[in-house]
Amino acid sequence: MALLVLKFGGTSVSDIERIECVADKIVRETHAGHKVVVVVSAMSGITDRLVGYCLEINELHDVSEYDTVVSAGEQITSGLMAIALQKRGVKARSWLGWQIPIKTNNVYGKARIKSIGIEELHKHLDDGEVAVVPGFQGITEESRISTLGRGGSDTSAVALAAALGADRCDIYTDVNGVYTADPRIVPEASKISRISYEEMLELASLGSKVLQTRSVEMGAKSGVAIQVLSSFDDEVGSALKGTLVVTEEEIVEQVIVTGIAHRQDEAKVTVIGVEDRPSVAAGLFGPLAKAAVNVDMIVQNISADGRTDMTFTINKTDLARAIKVLEEDVECSYDKVITRENVCKISVVGIGMQSHAGVANTMFNTLGEKGINIHVISTSEIKISVLIDSDYTELALRSLHTAYGLDCQESNPE
Amino acid sequence: MALLVLKFGGTSVSDIERIECVADKIVRETHAGHKVVVVVSAMSGITDRLVGYCLEINELHDVSEYDTVVSAGEQITSGLMAIALQKRGVKARSWLGWQIPIKTNNVYGKARIKSIGIEELHKHLDDGEVAVVPGFQGITEESRISTLGRGGSDTSAVALAAALGADRCDIYTDVNGVYTADPRIVPEASKISRISYEEMLELASLGSKVLQTRSVEMGAKSGVAIQVLSSFDDEVGSALKGTLVVTEEEIVEQVIVTGIAHRQDEAKVTVIGVEDRPSVAAGLFGPLAKAAVNVDMIVQNISADGRTDMTFTINKTDLARAIKVLEEDVECSYDKVITRENVCKISVVGIGMQSHAGVANTMFNTLGEKGINIHVISTSEIKISVLIDSDYTELALRSLHTAYGLDCQESNPE
Repeated sequence: MALLVLKFGGTSVSDIERIECVADKIVRETHAGHKVVVVVSAMSGITDRLVGYCLEINELHDVSEYDTVVSAGEQITSGLMAIALQKRGVKARSWLGWQIPIKTNNVYGKARIKSIGIEELHKHLDDGEVAVVPGFQGITEESRISTLGRGGSDTSAVALAAALGADRCDIYTDVNGVYTADPRIVPEASKISRISYEEMLELASLGSKVLQTRSVEMGAKSGVAIQVLSSFDDEVGSALKGTLVVTEEEIVEQVIVTGIAHRQDEAKVTVIGVEDRPSVAAGLFGPLAKAAVNVDMIVQNISADGRTDMTFTINKTDLARAIKVLEEDVECSYDKVITRENVCKISVVGIGMQSHAGVANTMFNTLGEKGINIHVISTSEIKISVLIDSDYTELALRSLHTAYGLDCQESNPE
Repeated sequence: MALLVLKFGGTSVSDIERIECVADKIVRETHAGHKVVVVVSAMSGITDRLVGYCLEINELHDVSEYDTVVSAGEQITSGLMAIALQKRGVKARSWLGWQIPIKTNNVYGKARIKSIGIEELHKHLDDGEVAVVPGFQGITEESRISTLGRGGSDTSAVALAAALGADRCDIYTDVNGVYTADPRIVPEASKISRISYEEMLELASLGSKVLQTRSVEMGAKSGVAIQVLSSFDDEVGSALKGTLVVTEEEIVEQVIVTGIAHRQDEAKVTVIGVEDRPSVAAGLFGPLAKAAVNVDMIVQNISADGRTDMTFTINKTDLARAIKVLEEDVECSYDKVITRENVCKISVVGIGMQSHAGVANTMFNTLGEKGINIHVISTSEIKISVLIDSDYTELALRSLHTAYGLDCQESNPE
């Protein structure tokens, strides 16, 4: 008998029919004798509609009120799921964020979980009751509803699993696992059966939109095993047919490169002729951070005549804001700004890289052979990212997938 | 400077455009220097959709989960209204039922308010902040969300007005007041400028769907002046152009009959040949009450041979259930049951009746002259109700309206 946290995303609970299917799945786990906590997202479309309402009234709306509005979506699903479980003869009740409580800080819209009250939950779970928790929401120190940011239901699930000491956190979504590359682009991509938190973190933050980044961080910190699997398959999580995110030690056969991610929504900004003196980077990136522009890759060219060029990438949607900041707020002089929108970031990720030389070289050679120009390079211990023209995305992904020996590799041998 | 509670129903906040219009109205009251508490319903259609979801999964759903689901509608409006007010430069915040708290008993789906925490609210109101409260919801002793029954937002508003010692509770709806009869049927009907709680109670429970019955009871108990007015008119509540519900003493010019209500959704049930002995009524109506069948008018015919006929009216939707109870559960013998669905209850209501003879006589004569057969009669101190065939509804209403001198009476002289 295990304690499981099962999380179902928006497409898994898109309508009443899907909610009933999910309820059937949950019942199979309870009938197998497991204690179950269910975390649900809003029925798909609802959150977007509620966000749209807030934006329609005021683009610069009060985020605490926004949280009160949008958290209603998950609240609705939690009650409906409890009703669906009860119909199947399973004891169940909904537990809203403030009822548990899931306490967060006061950063509305992007709150972080500080603590979770588990005593009452444990009592009800011991009593054979399924706890249905709306994801994405918590309660602040001011006793108001907070939300954890888009995709925050993953974080709710992993945080609950960690707090309750769950044996596993199953994230049911519309894909049946994490792949070596986007299968829509690389047909040879295969499902990864086990991946480390660190690798998943790089893949999550690089655009494989399977798990919210923070949920993986939390899993790594707490050691909760996270499984990504499809709610549209007939299997339940206990069959372990999805992708398991675990510690490095739990991965038996290490490969050098685990997967290749890409991200299309980047924009490149180059600031030409920046005066090259200490603290110039702070003068440039400080105001950008203040304006909530998330800077990703940063490259500084060699200095000449006391001037340098600074290149960085940001999210495309932040481009207009970034230019405004550069024109009005930065505390250093420069000649001009050049921007480029049609760029794509490609990253190869793998724990094995740490002990293998030549991984970067394979990447540069492969791209060079195909005539693909690299704009920016950035590396970490377990990944190498390059920025290229968008037009070459498919070509780069497929060539790299082959070059790293990922094609047709049976990484999911069940 | 007054403290006002303003309640806006579903059609008044049906979409973002209407929410913005209502926000403008509220701002006019705050600019006039009033402290304002706003109570909002769900955007029209949302509650029905949420109720539909619950029914779709299980008609016999857990009502506590139902409450968690349907209360989300008002929660959404409250956040959106706060955002709309803030955009207009007015300080505002939403206050959910559990945040205030509005404490209720544990009767989910039809909870009754037990107490309201007003200290924090008063602090914020004194600080010039508008409090936006989702109607219809509270928190039970088990710290779960409860709802007050359909139309419960009226009760939320009046209860808040009573607890806060408000000067007036304005119920904004889609009609501009209470009329002497339904203007769609009686074109000569006129708006009533002042009506007593008792009269309003009779009219509310008799089918003038303007105010939830319990809200009027609460107004009578607490003495809060309630005004019914239209959110679609250009005026605000402080102009007092709607219908004011007040104590009998505050009504200057008393008329004998204030208004005529009708109710089409009644069904008549006659139980023939019931054994006539003490406690037979309890044996008949006890099981009906237990099955939540609301019995309205009751008439018992004279007894013959130790047997009597019992006639009563119920809501049409309860008819099938009532027959089942009569067949299976009643603890007395009878010959047979006759039912009739196409009936209408017509009631003349007026405080003035208490001191005037002949009101009933006028009714019977008027209906008799038009050849309208009366099935059942029931009276109280301030009303006389008759049950007639539905076909005669319009004829009866118009004839009675004329007979009681209500035609073209200028009861709204502003």
